[in-house]
Amino acid sequence: MNDTDRAADFSAGAAWVQGRYLPIAQATLPLTDWGFLRSDAAYDVVTVWDGAFFRLDAHLRRFRASCEAFRLQPGRSDEEIAQILMQCVRLSGLRNAYVEMIVTRGQPPWGSRDPRQAVNQFHAFAVPYVWIANEEQRQRGLRMQVSDVPRIPSASVDARAKNYHWHDLTRGLLQALDAGFDTAVLGDGAGHVVEGPGFNVFAVDAGGRIATPDQGVLEGITRQTVIDIADALGLALQQRPLPVQELRAAREVFVTSSAGGVLPVTELDGQPVGSGAPGPLTRRITETYWAWHKDPRYSRAVDYGGAP
Amino acid sequence: MNDTDRAADFSAGAAWVQGRYLPIAQATLPLTDWGFLRSDAAYDVVTVWDGAFFRLDAHLRRFRASCEAFRLQPGRSDEEIAQILMQCVRLSGLRNAYVEMIVTRGQPPWGSRDPRQAVNQFHAFAVPYVWIANEEQRQRGLRMQVSDVPRIPSASVDARAKNYHWHDLTRGLLQALDAGFDTAVLGDGAGHVVEGPGFNVFAVDAGGRIATPDQGVLEGITRQTVIDIADALGLALQQRPLPVQELRAAREVFVTSSAGGVLPVTELDGQPVGSGAPGPLTRRITETYWAWHKDPRYSRAVDYGGAP
Ligand SMILES: Cc1ncc(COP(=O)(O)O)c(C=O)c1O
Ligand SMILES: Cc1ncc(COP(=O)(O)O)c(C=O)c1O
Repeated sequence: MNDTDRAADFSAGAAWVQGRYLPIAQATLPLTDWGFLRSDAAYDVVTVWDGAFFRLDAHLRRFRASCEAFRLQPGRSDEEIAQILMQCVRLSGLRNAYVEMIVTRGQPPWGSRDPRQAVNQFHAFAVPYVWIANEEQRQRGLRMQVSDVPRIPSASVDARAKNYHWHDLTRGLLQALDAGFDTAVLGDGAGHVVEGPGFNVFAVDAGGRIATPDQGVLEGITRQTVIDIADALGLALQQRPLPVQELRAAREVFVTSSAGGVLPVTELDGQPVGSGAPGPLTRRITETYWAWHKDPRYSRAVDYGGAP
Repeated sequence: MNDTDRAADFSAGAAWVQGRYLPIAQATLPLTDWGFLRSDAAYDVVTVWDGAFFRLDAHLRRFRASCEAFRLQPGRSDEEIAQILMQCVRLSGLRNAYVEMIVTRGQPPWGSRDPRQAVNQFHAFAVPYVWIANEEQRQRGLRMQVSDVPRIPSASVDARAKNYHWHDLTRGLLQALDAGFDTAVLGDGAGHVVEGPGFNVFAVDAGGRIATPDQGVLEGITRQTVIDIADALGLALQQRPLPVQELRAAREVFVTSSAGGVLPVTELDGQPVGSGAPGPLTRRITETYWAWHKDPRYSRAVDYGGAP
């Protein structure tokens, strides 16, 4: 740990920037990095729950695919990245953490406008676990607005490659918050819902069949976990375009995110979803989601004692 | 200048970040600012040429409109912003400069996902003048690819509000560079061209009539200057959708940007535009563009001696 200040306070979170571990409040990006000035970056978020990473391998795999889509190079192996993330968590001492890995374009030599001439930069940080819904919202279910802002189409920016192009999501969220809703789900501009600010969406019909959009969305790792859970529990699940009317007619609606897992939606545009309370299938999937956090197939323990 | 280190070397550029003037290489953004983590930011770029700002008022006006579109607050008056930009240029000593003003969302209190709870942050910097085309390209004209990547539609992110959502522009640019072109112009996915990485586009037909897209583009200040020049010179100019075929059939094509002014395009997808050399109308407009930099209606001198 020779590149780390032993006296520093990492309890609010720890970051790896420019080859050093720093308390999160001191972690910065050069203002001139194109990762900021052109949002030319790829990222991923994995969580630590009860002292163990959840599906770290899947997140590392998706991160690499996102980098490739934008032609960005993390410049290190998956295991090297895992070790940096591990060290960020270890330094913070956090048992439940939100852990982000990032590659930015960097900056070409002054005067050049050629992205290929830039040296890409890797950054990472671990902070306390983030919930996209507060405790009250998780209990009663989210009140969601079906936004009329269309998500950026994948033809312009591939939604499967995790990126920071969020102005559409932010606009939808701001409109929803102003109107008294908790959050918003965006559409594709052609009558289907796609995803929201930080989550995928699922609808359960009267027959107990589950559907989630397959186009124009980030293929969330939590979404994949729900697909795997449905498989394990023998529930019918389809990945396909999801018309807005079908969402409105659903018996249960839930959203999925690394920042909170599986979260019930109990109102859409002011109308109750099904009974208006979190549904039984949502509950069952949520329980399995958290139970799987102890499953050695998916978890990798953080060694908190191991500061050399 | 009590908040500035007198010994610091600002010759590569000067920035205003977190209430202080710093050499550009030391200017940073907190890694956790949503301006980075959600590209939740608005910006503008104005230039200084031969010691004077060009159309500073127009840039400040557009900057404020961009901020409003994204509900971001610069937290200072136009004149206060002008003074900060002025001081960045003064510290750098640059006679020709590229000057950027930025507002980022900042970050809501930990745990909150509500953008309205964040304290927005203002940043600025001045660096040496940037050209989107190098000298050889400016002489012979740009070799441009008509990209098949569609620009992010304004329904998702308002193109008139200047923002850092550039993954589509970067992808188009990378494809063009790989194929041996100098740059790319993107389309709207419906047969029209819109804009490229940092510029607007104009076509001149066989009758000398000029056209430039009016939808799904940033309303460039250089574009506006060309519109004003056409008006002053009595040239016919229309703002309207520009079909790709019309661009291909044009006698002259040029692009406009604060980073270089008016720049000829002499090849499209390997085919010569008109004669294959920069055209007479492009040249006349370019000359007027630079002549107007001396016009007191548009220029505001930088007081380089005035460090208190
Ligand atoms: C746009 C978007 N969709 C979906 C998700 C959910 O993905 P995951 O389950 O991997 O967290 C996220 C996560 O932040 C996201 O940003
Ligand atoms: C996407 C885009 N279009 C057009 C322009 C040209 O605008 P201006 O003439 O104001 O520099 C820019 C400038 O950077 C831009 O980024």
